[in-house]
Amino acid sequence: MSHPHPFDQALRLAHSDLQSGLFTGQTSPEYWNMVGPFGGATAAVVLQSVLQHPDLLGEPVALTVNFAAAIEAGAFEVQATPVRTNRSTQHWTVSISQNGQINTTGTVFTALRRETWGAGDLPMPEVPRPADVDRVSIGPQGVAWLSQYEMRPISGKPPTEWDGSGTHSESRVWLRESPQRPLDFASLAAMSDMFFPRVWLRRATRVPAGTVSLTTYFHADAKLLAQVGTGYLLGRAHAQQFFSGYFDQSAHLWSEAGQLLATSNQIVYYKE
Amino acid sequence: MSHPHPFDQALRLAHSDLQSGLFTGQTSPEYWNMVGPFGGATAAVVLQSVLQHPDLLGEPVALTVNFAAAIEAGAFEVQATPVRTNRSTQHWTVSISQNGQINTTGTVFTALRRETWGAGDLPMPEVPRPADVDRVSIGPQGVAWLSQYEMRPISGKPPTEWDGSGTHSESRVWLRESPQRPLDFASLAAMSDMFFPRVWLRRATRVPAGTVSLTTYFHADAKLLAQVGTGYLLGRAHAQQFFSGYFDQSAHLWSEAGQLLATSNQIVYYKE
Repeated sequence: MSHPHPFDQALRLAHSDLQSGLFTGQTSPEYWNMVGPFGGATAAVVLQSVLQHPDLLGEPVALTVNFAAAIEAGAFEVQATPVRTNRSTQHWTVSISQNGQINTTGTVFTALRRETWGAGDLPMPEVPRPADVDRVSIGPQGVAWLSQYEMRPISGKPPTEWDGSGTHSESRVWLRESPQRPLDFASLAAMSDMFFPRVWLRRATRVPAGTVSLTTYFHADAKLLAQVGTGYLLGRAHAQQFFSGYFDQSAHLWSEAGQLLATSNQIVYYKE
Repeated sequence: MSHPHPFDQALRLAHSDLQSGLFTGQTSPEYWNMVGPFGGATAAVVLQSVLQHPDLLGEPVALTVNFAAAIEAGAFEVQATPVRTNRSTQHWTVSISQNGQINTTGTVFTALRRETWGAGDLPMPEVPRPADVDRVSIGPQGVAWLSQYEMRPISGKPPTEWDGSGTHSESRVWLRESPQRPLDFASLAAMSDMFFPRVWLRRATRVPAGTVSLTTYFHADAKLLAQVGTGYLLGRAHAQQFFSGYFDQSAHLWSEAGQLLATSNQIVYYKE
């Protein structure tokens, strides 16, 4: 008998009443960050509650997750509510609670996709192939969730000397899940949050930092994600403005074939 | 006796019970779009409900607004709820309703700003000064809200020939309110939605299109906004990916002095 993938375990939601949209889940040790769950795993749980709801219409197009307070290790409740259902679109609100206190809010937009004219206006950067880029080895001291991804950083690696010498905020990295797992909306949502805080790179200074709010747009349907399968994604992230305790972090994820699958933005707290 | 600015009229919210966070407002004819209010005005109303709430902590940092259904001309209700208040940060959910049906959802993140190290990593493009760029005259056939802004488009103007000849999706424009009004968070929120749908520019084809969800990050505090005052902002917008009925539209707003005040992203529906 095969074990489920750790990501599927992290996403496992049980419901007591199918129609109410109230689910219960458990934080995953495999996706633990330093003082709470990996934000990407939390974003994936928010999305998953919508995907499991019996009233779901269509596929995810937009996801916003607000990390309002720390999530503690253990059980949590997720409430997914279809606030407005139109002919081919649907708007959801989601919240995660522990002990009756909301620690995460979110909104999800889903839609029935239709084939239309399309175009990609942001070509994938020219980078070496994944096989030509060394894989990062995550030591036993690393945070748990990093071990769930195979990462092959091309540029903009985390500083090894925290000497204040940083000059830019852009990273490029090949990535996929480890162990491998076919790409779906939940894993794409998680990967949109997998870039370390840009302020560390920009300043080569390790100040406290944490994501406050994340918005991810999906430029893919299930068919396209199935084509990508277990292939690598090219991730790119950069910051645009650092101002009085918060900076924005923009992220892009392309398939190895060069299709831009997701664009994501987050606002991140930093100290000092 | 002076009349209030049309934007302040559009933002006017009355409350029956100060603590409940329930407000009533009225759509503004001056900020009408083709089949409903200008989305930027709706985003500003969402933000304004938080700014008027007696429990507000700090200043706006992030705003997400989901346009779930059409808003009809007339009265509406706004419910602003402080879901989580921490020591120096606060998370809000907001909804707008008419006749008991929610047509707009949103989340707002506010925080007490602290002076920190800061940097701008996205320099303002080199463009002619506002005085050297012609002002667009909005004819009587134009939609109402366009007349509320002084726009001086530099590049990427709306096509005059809808002949399918488009090649890119980037616009640059100097803008400010008309009549002039000192910049504040609500007007900055509105201006982050003031760019016409990128699909029109990219294809030189006027397909139906409308914003579904908007996220704006503020890289400014009240002091900085006061410094900008009634000055021009440089706006820049472009799309990144058009896929099966939805594209993302990224926008940036700089002060004339070159400070990046807001970064914004939206996901936009398009037909065909």
